Amino acid sequence: MRDVAIVGVSQTKFGELWDKSFRDLVVEAGVEAINDANMSGDKIDAMYIGNMTGGLFVGQEHIGALIAEHSGLAPIPSTRVEAACASGGLAFRQAVMAVASGYYDNVMAAGVEKMTDVVDATPAIAAAADREWEAQQGATFPSLYAMMAHRHMYEYGTTREQIASFAVLGHKNGALNPRAQFQREISLDTVLNGTKVASPFTVFDCSPVSDGAAAVIVCPAEDAKKYTDTPIYIKASTQASDTIALHSRKSLTQLESTIIASRKAYDIAGVEAKDIDVAEVHDCFTINGLLAIEDLGFFEKGKGGQAIEQGLIERDGQIAINPSGGLKARGHPLGATGIAQVAEITWQLRGDADKRQVDGAELGLTHNVGGTGGTVAVQILSRNK
Amino acid sequence: MRDVAIVGVSQTKFGELWDKSFRDLVVEAGVEAINDANMSGDKIDAMYIGNMTGGLFVGQEHIGALIAEHSGLAPIPSTRVEAACASGGLAFRQAVMAVASGYYDNVMAAGVEKMTDVVDATPAIAAAADREWEAQQGATFPSLYAMMAHRHMYEYGTTREQIASFAVLGHKNGALNPRAQFQREISLDTVLNGTKVASPFTVFDCSPVSDGAAAVIVCPAEDAKKYTDTPIYIKASTQASDTIALHSRKSLTQLESTIIASRKAYDIAGVEAKDIDVAEVHDCFTINGLLAIEDLGFFEKGKGGQAIEQGLIERDGQIAINPSGGLKARGHPLGATGIAQVAEITWQLRGDADKRQVDGAELGLTHNVGGTGGTVAVQILSRNK
Repeated sequence: MRDVAIVGVSQTKFGELWDKSFRDLVVEAGVEAINDANMSGDKIDAMYIGNMTGGLFVGQEHIGALIAEHSGLAPIPSTRVEAACASGGLAFRQAVMAVASGYYDNVMAAGVEKMTDVVDATPAIAAAADREWEAQQGATFPSLYAMMAHRHMYEYGTTREQIASFAVLGHKNGALNPRAQFQREISLDTVLNGTKVASPFTVFDCSPVSDGAAAVIVCPAEDAKKYTDTPIYIKASTQASDTIALHSRKSLTQLESTIIASRKAYDIAGVEAKDIDVAEVHDCFTINGLLAIEDLGFFEKGKGGQAIEQGLIERDGQIAINPSGGLKARGHPLGATGIAQVAEITWQLRGDADKRQVDGAELGLTHNVGGTGGTVAVQILSRNK
Repeated sequence: MRDVAIVGVSQTKFGELWDKSFRDLVVEAGVEAINDANMSGDKIDAMYIGNMTGGLFVGQEHIGALIAEHSGLAPIPSTRVEAACASGGLAFRQAVMAVASGYYDNVMAAGVEKMTDVVDATPAIAAAADREWEAQQGATFPSLYAMMAHRHMYEYGTTREQIASFAVLGHKNGALNPRAQFQREISLDTVLNGTKVASPFTVFDCSPVSDGAAAVIVCPAEDAKKYTDTPIYIKASTQASDTIALHSRKSLTQLESTIIASRKAYDIAGVEAKDIDVAEVHDCFTINGLLAIEDLGFFEKGKGGQAIEQGLIERDGQIAINPSGGLKARGHPLGATGIAQVAEITWQLRGDADKRQVDGAELGLTHNVGGTGGTVAVQILSRNK
């Protein structure tokens, strides 16, 4: 298999983008990524599109062809990949496999979701849960993750304040990210005293409903310097599945799929969790950020809350977590998130992250979760070949 | 890249399966394919699932994880691929790429759709067209393909009877297929005098609304004899895109994506159209079967109607087309169709197709179309290594 590198990335601003349609968003991201790669569109051999629920949100399936047409890239193969909120991570992984295998040289992975100004989001998002055993019984994602938060507090003495602090950190970083949906800081009191959604969560524990798109161009590592002076190399790209239904799990306080995918990624990359300088983790709800930093092996199980409290995951901490603002502040257009994570880590490793730059970042990781962990994708990226 | 072979296939009966849920169907197909491969489930390294519109039909996305759980195969990577009615063909292709690349050894590609006993099918299927420019204006798939039929009649003198004959042939073959939705013959008069759907089509020109699933197991060609005495070898697997909207095409009487994908497949396999003994083509409407046999190069453009009339595509004709009954008679559970086509060609090349066997078939082709040709997948399969 060939080594693969990232030579172009982009992300539209995330937010309530009422003047932009589904197709507008992904074409904007695609064009920017191609420009970032100093590549002409006719060099792109294939596309993978991460999108969760175009069918329910905008009545549009067949999204690969739609995007191939509207970006002017037909007749190249264009394939939509769906894995709920991990759709972007899996689309990226298919692009990496397509290049590694030798099938294609230059491949675009893009992600997109149009969630505002369309139908009600919560029932559509609930399609990522088990329809028969969860969604039809009234379980929504805030309520499912809320159970995990309560159980973590019970098992490990994690405090409500520690969990809420994950949102405070997200907004602190997001305030420095011009592409973020929310570019302002919030206080711990704001999170704790916000409108209740599902105990213990207030609205500030929950990532927002967002429109947005992101795109990445990958090519064989040996060709990367043709397109950019600072290629970012993919050291590992892994994926694991777990039960889609939360009630079938052995534990409510860890995502087995995060553990499996990340351990496999560390093995393939020949690194350890402690070697990672910067990570974008999937904080769809505050508790999931906390579970992630434990399950990825950055901190011992049960110690995530303390790590947050002690400032260990700030940009200048032991490991910089979510310098982009994460799902909470950058926004969470479902299918775009996994690609936006890769774009952020690429900017960080290139040294292009401006005010939110993590100094000296050389090795980064992305962690993208579908549902309550039914799917997890992990990527390890490096500025060194 | 490694050569890849098919070692197990399955298809549930297609039809109105009111006693079977979405997940029941795909688990049934998966288990049968694993048994057919004489393989235990723990040998499967990854899964790809073709499904068009679980979100709109049954409120279920995140289908990869759902199926990994319910087939007991988690934590292996499980990825859903969507390209409207070509979802199955693309899922199969991703499985082939995953093995060819060396990422995985044994991979399952499955396809599934639950279309009856749920919501109204036509609006959901319309999500495969361009939502803004076609579906929202009231265009449905029968009406889009009907325009192509009229134009073919106008440009080439194709007769209404020639087009309708494609359905008669489908039912003639389907009558011999115990897995087909419709196992009875129909007459030309029945097609011509059926309830009008969109001129010139009656209901008998249209493939039915179906429930069903199918699955295929692929592995490296060099390992295939471990699992079966009659592996079927994948000589080419290609894909092309076109505009999703019909009005943007240069021609209404050919699918450019079929031409591009098939010519590339012939090149890769080192064969010509005339070498193909048996093909499963995408006759979602009668006219599309006729376009397919022309665009795939089996007959000259404009001569497809005459070929049907002269019996050249019967099981004992110049090339056997749709011995399974095709989408018209076997049924068309959208995401399952591309996989069911591969299963049928595998049975034919193994010599396992019983009453519908095409004598001496050695080289076969599958042709799977998304929308009105926005996506096309072509596979060339051989009983010879």
